[in-house]
Amino acid sequence: MRGIFLTVEGIDGCGKTTQAELLQNYLIKKGFPVIKTREPGGTSLAEDLRNILLSPKNLIYPMTELLLYAASRAQHTQELIKPSLENGKIVICERYIDASLAYQGYGRGIDLSIIERLNEIATEGLKPDITILFDIDVERAFELKRRNSFLFDRLEMEEMEFHKRVRNGYLEIAKKEKRFRIIKVDGSVKDVHNKVIEVWEEFYRCFLQEIGR
Amino acid sequence: MRGIFLTVEGIDGCGKTTQAELLQNYLIKKGFPVIKTREPGGTSLAEDLRNILLSPKNLIYPMTELLLYAASRAQHTQELIKPSLENGKIVICERYIDASLAYQGYGRGIDLSIIERLNEIATEGLKPDITILFDIDVERAFELKRRNSFLFDRLEMEEMEFHKRVRNGYLEIAKKEKRFRIIKVDGSVKDVHNKVIEVWEEFYRCFLQEIGR
Repeated sequence: MRGIFLTVEGIDGCGKTTQAELLQNYLIKKGFPVIKTREPGGTSLAEDLRNILLSPKNLIYPMTELLLYAASRAQHTQELIKPSLENGKIVICERYIDASLAYQGYGRGIDLSIIERLNEIATEGLKPDITILFDIDVERAFELKRRNSFLFDRLEMEEMEFHKRVRNGYLEIAKKEKRFRIIKVDGSVKDVHNKVIEVWEEFYRCFLQEIGR
Repeated sequence: MRGIFLTVEGIDGCGKTTQAELLQNYLIKKGFPVIKTREPGGTSLAEDLRNILLSPKNLIYPMTELLLYAASRAQHTQELIKPSLENGKIVICERYIDASLAYQGYGRGIDLSIIERLNEIATEGLKPDITILFDIDVERAFELKRRNSFLFDRLEMEEMEFHKRVRNGYLEIAKKEKRFRIIKVDGSVKDVHNKVIEVWEEFYRCFLQEIGR
């Protein structure tokens, strides 16, 4: 059986890392083979690139940044994601193609058609089966972040306005892509987790129907 | 006055590094402001990427490699090449857009149209004013290399056949692009240098005519 490719997206502070972990544990308890990974990163080379990308010491031009994300994604897709899917696993990935559109496109103003082309080149056309977007007010996301840590990395230091453009970008993409499910982040971690389970169960029912099981 | 962008290309062992240095010294003696740089590299970030690219420990997929070269090129172009040209300098660069076409395209078989698109994205359309291709038999290039060093890096370890495809690729590109000058590497370093000077002087005469000086 082929695997399932699930991505979680959303601005910094939306809680996607926590929710991805909770979903992973839930699926493991149900007996599914699951791997959880993230972008930028997920492989040794991609982690090296992640360090370059997130280091505050590097002055990185927007186009360089976009191409580094694409390189990291190409490696991650070939080395980890595709083989795992071929082995029938559920792959949960934090950020993927939509993050480039939201951050570099809607956020930094790079032409969306360039990003779409790079996404296609990097993934050789692979798309998630389902993408969960954790949608949250930018102000509230910043509050949650600050409660947890005072160390902001380069991307996090970017201003509030940027994150608002990114959030709206995600919502625009979600309108166009059937694979998106939007979850409002407005309750406790447990509340949001319950919504994730609901979304998953519904998706999985349809998935089984589609493959005729 | 705007600067001049000169690139030198050719397979490993063709002598382009030595010839680029000799040309640089020649131009400096003539009183020109010159900077010499190379790909992949030329800036701090691009040198970090160069280390990742050339390290034998990294298993790098062809598409990742292509995208890393593009990222390195974007940074190098924005940070160093364009500002130097705007300051009226002669920029001598070892390898540029044609190297991706020759190595990743003709050498590794990646679709040339993908590489052309990435070149365009990375450089924002900048092309060299003149490109000197040092053409040499692959067997002879390997001989020259082995005389100088027994330490081969990842790219150099690739087989002879690969380098033959790259050489033929360079010759194909040179047929299509007016900016190319082919220099056969078949004499001493001094002989080849003299040919480079000839090519340069002829180019420069035309360049001055074109800009009306």
